[in-house]
Amino acid sequence: MQPDFEKAGGLVAAIAQDADSGQVLMIAWMNREAWEETLRSKRAVYYSRSRGKLWRKGEESGHVQEVREVYVDCDADTILLKVKQVGGAACHEGYASCFFRKVEGDDVKVVGERVFDPKQVYRK
Amino acid sequence: MQPDFEKAGGLVAAIAQDADSGQVLMIAWMNREAWEETLRSKRAVYYSRSRGKLWRKGEESGHVQEVREVYVDCDADTILLKVKQVGGAACHEGYASCFFRKVEGDDVKVVGERVFDPKQVYRK
Repeated sequence: MQPDFEKAGGLVAAIAQDADSGQVLMIAWMNREAWEETLRSKRAVYYSRSRGKLWRKGEESGHVQEVREVYVDCDADTILLKVKQVGGAACHEGYASCFFRKVEGDDVKVVGERVFDPKQVYRK
Repeated sequence: MQPDFEKAGGLVAAIAQDADSGQVLMIAWMNREAWEETLRSKRAVYYSRSRGKLWRKGEESGHVQEVREVYVDCDADTILLKVKQVGGAACHEGYASCFFRKVEGDDVKVVGERVFDPKQVYRK
């Protein structure tokens, strides 16, 4: 079964969830090529909208996502990956999850702890 | 803190996750109005792209999502809601989660159990 890339204009949203803890790590996008390579390689491959090309998660940082389980939603236009996040952090800011900011009324609180220092990992 | 609706063309993706079990229930979309009403009412309000209007989750079925926690991601263009799903099923097909189909190689397996019969809940 394929996600319906046509309906969604070529890209579908993909959630990465930690397979062990259940923590939601991030959302990214996949085109058909990213989807097929993800299934084949068992590593998460997304499509970077900002860079306009495939994004093999971890290709720069080494923090790849090993794909344990793959789900497609009822409308076949969203994907859920259960992954093992190598390095312990999915977020380019060094947090385990990209959702490290909690909204409480008008306030926002950082609730995650930094696993790594982005300056050390992404050397430009 | 507001999600960046401008960057995202007016809509941002929102994940609903069961606050207790950690199960990912669904993805939907929010515009600014949906976001503000969600925070105010503490019930999930989305924007239906197919219907082109606000979608107060559960308005027809009674299966509302009580919002326990709200997170915004690093790029401020995705939302994570931790919710209590009233009725036990987020999916309009009667499953707890919209991600009830697991992809295994070329096969797809239904892994969720039906909580309700859609024909009984959505009387047209």
